[in-house]
Amino acid sequence: MSTRPAVRGAVVTPIAFPDPPLLNAAGVHQPWALRSIIELRLGGELVGLGESYGDEPHLALLHRTAAALVGLDPFDLADLRRRVAAALGAGFDVADRHGLTGGSSPAKTMARVLAPFEVACLDLQGKLTDRPVCDLLGGRYRDRVPFSAYLFYKWAGHPGAEPDEWGEALDPAGIVAQAQRMVRQYGFGSIKLKGGVFPPEEEIAAIRALREAFPAHPLRLDPNAVWTVPTSVKVAEETEGLLEYLEDPTEGIPGMAEVAARAPMPLATNMCVIQFAELPEAMARRAVGVVLADHHYWGGLRACAELAAVCRIWDVGLSMHSNSHLGISLAAMVHLAAATPNLSYAVDTHTPWQCGVDVLRTPLRFADGSIEVPAGPGLGVELDRAALARMSADYLRCGIRERDDTGYLRQVRPDFERPLW
Amino acid sequence: MSTRPAVRGAVVTPIAFPDPPLLNAAGVHQPWALRSIIELRLGGELVGLGESYGDEPHLALLHRTAAALVGLDPFDLADLRRRVAAALGAGFDVADRHGLTGGSSPAKTMARVLAPFEVACLDLQGKLTDRPVCDLLGGRYRDRVPFSAYLFYKWAGHPGAEPDEWGEALDPAGIVAQAQRMVRQYGFGSIKLKGGVFPPEEEIAAIRALREAFPAHPLRLDPNAVWTVPTSVKVAEETEGLLEYLEDPTEGIPGMAEVAARAPMPLATNMCVIQFAELPEAMARRAVGVVLADHHYWGGLRACAELAAVCRIWDVGLSMHSNSHLGISLAAMVHLAAATPNLSYAVDTHTPWQCGVDVLRTPLRFADGSIEVPAGPGLGVELDRAALARMSADYLRCGIRERDDTGYLRQVRPDFERPLW
Repeated sequence: MSTRPAVRGAVVTPIAFPDPPLLNAAGVHQPWALRSIIELRLGGELVGLGESYGDEPHLALLHRTAAALVGLDPFDLADLRRRVAAALGAGFDVADRHGLTGGSSPAKTMARVLAPFEVACLDLQGKLTDRPVCDLLGGRYRDRVPFSAYLFYKWAGHPGAEPDEWGEALDPAGIVAQAQRMVRQYGFGSIKLKGGVFPPEEEIAAIRALREAFPAHPLRLDPNAVWTVPTSVKVAEETEGLLEYLEDPTEGIPGMAEVAARAPMPLATNMCVIQFAELPEAMARRAVGVVLADHHYWGGLRACAELAAVCRIWDVGLSMHSNSHLGISLAAMVHLAAATPNLSYAVDTHTPWQCGVDVLRTPLRFADGSIEVPAGPGLGVELDRAALARMSADYLRCGIRERDDTGYLRQVRPDFERPLW
Repeated sequence: MSTRPAVRGAVVTPIAFPDPPLLNAAGVHQPWALRSIIELRLGGELVGLGESYGDEPHLALLHRTAAALVGLDPFDLADLRRRVAAALGAGFDVADRHGLTGGSSPAKTMARVLAPFEVACLDLQGKLTDRPVCDLLGGRYRDRVPFSAYLFYKWAGHPGAEPDEWGEALDPAGIVAQAQRMVRQYGFGSIKLKGGVFPPEEEIAAIRALREAFPAHPLRLDPNAVWTVPTSVKVAEETEGLLEYLEDPTEGIPGMAEVAARAPMPLATNMCVIQFAELPEAMARRAVGVVLADHHYWGGLRACAELAAVCRIWDVGLSMHSNSHLGISLAAMVHLAAATPNLSYAVDTHTPWQCGVDVLRTPLRFADGSIEVPAGPGLGVELDRAALARMSADYLRCGIRERDDTGYLRQVRPDFERPLW
């Protein structure tokens, strides 16, 4: 066999991009969202791309790992795993301050650090073999991946700033207007409302208003686990026939199992089943009907393919979760979804909220709510170096080093506590 | 992207090779073992290899499928799956007459037909990209794969024929002598005895004799589910401390679960968990502690990687099952094992019973009971066309068209029935 390719260098660039004031159970999005762009260089023009979180403690682990990847064969994901584990060493837990993805553990931290480098390796594998990433994941089950409109309650603009182009949405009418605009602009065929912001009855009213405005669109509601079990059951009963699934109504597998047993619709989660260790209990208790995969914290695309296999075997639905992200993550999600036979629901994305800002030279485009699998080798996307430089400068000057939705909301409402209805 | 490679033709060659009279619960191995060799041709010299069962009803499905593969892109395993399903159509159940792998179902038949073509596609993918198959499965977790000595009670030779080179083994002394020869010749570090042939006490005596002769070798016993639950529990108690696992003592997940709850050692299976649909119940009941994967009936190497992921997540051990096979299957097993992080036990193989007969130009060699991952691209093995032609002629003249251990034993013992102790 010819000489194996080897990574010559890995670069992690923290970036920031403008983010609207989207409300959720933990608080409100800050004016800048943080991400990190990973480049694995093989020499010459060959670069593999990855995208991950941009919070400072996570960045430190990405940098430490990047330094340990020189000489890595991008096909040897087993070696990648060994190098990441060695670079992280012991005692490397990093918790999210935004608190929307549960507590921390070494396995979760390992998965979150591994993920963007695995994606970059797969991008390189594709470029070296002239194949799209979905082929390397096992073949193409669909040419287009459907996404869902992701609605948020939001302020008109950040405090002290002009209203943004999306404007205010703090009641059913505002949510319907937001949905109409988003569906018109992107063609989404299903709609999700991020809830957990207002008392349940107000959010049910928003769902009813959406149903009236969109008689045929499947609807979802996600209160980020701020309801008790009785509240969750009550909302589930009141929204019977309205929701294709109810996402994370309450906290933890036991609570979700209790609600699931009485809810007329499936429960989805990206909060109580977010690592492999949680699958056995969740499946045994039938706590969830849909798992929302996210390669950024499950450990990469192949890890998500394993999760998909479990969902298929246990006859549990599967879709994908999203945080604020840019085009490299979007491309990775599209390839993964294309290679996943049992993708059962349209995928979440925050893309419309980024208002066209991206690190790609040619951002992926939505048509009829779907994105076509990029044709090029690897992820099929190209980094816009000018945009990267600009966003890197924005990171340096924005002053935010860790996502903190709660702290930001408390600047406006000092007494804010995460609700429990 | 450049033009996609496309399969120009698929050839299925049934072959036969000499097999010694190995006894098991279903009967005894016939003088000829049947297999099929699959070649997927891309044009030029590029051929992808696979190996499967050689029974006539299965062969008919392989031939029907082969005819539907012209134009297949060997990277598009999703398309392969679609083509196989379309070629098989409805109502294509094929049961094993040897009855050692449970009943039939469309999903099992699909998996068995898909498997050798998937392996051949992966071999082609490796050849097209100059990478070994283990890299395409996710990287190399080990450079050498450990195998286990696979002992059988056996006659000295087939009825009417000269004794074979292994000679008779019908009691503890014969089994120990067989083990000594096999361990000396191949260096195996663990030992499995195929049981279910004699009453349990005699097989326990053989295990005790093996323990005395091999104080440090992990031992296994596999009676192919011919014991009742009480017998299984009794044997398990009597062999406490002697066995690393007890394989398929009794039939079915409920029975296995009952034994597992009382047995001091883990129970392994390649009989009650042989398709994905059986995993949820098996895991819920904790029926098995070790799953013996077999890519020939789980649906290929990627399917086995999914099975391995389930075993890892549910904290169940994993190793591999073997039927009589040749070097293409062995190479596929080695690549799969190399790419499986959680391979917990040495792998089964019938290779020593084939006495050097193979379809490979350079058969894989055991050193210290292990086989090194072949270095070449793809599976890293090359077909010996002269040997293939010889074995194909042997198939045509041997007269056997379906494995039938029971029928063959009844030629000697007309009253033979599968035992139940």
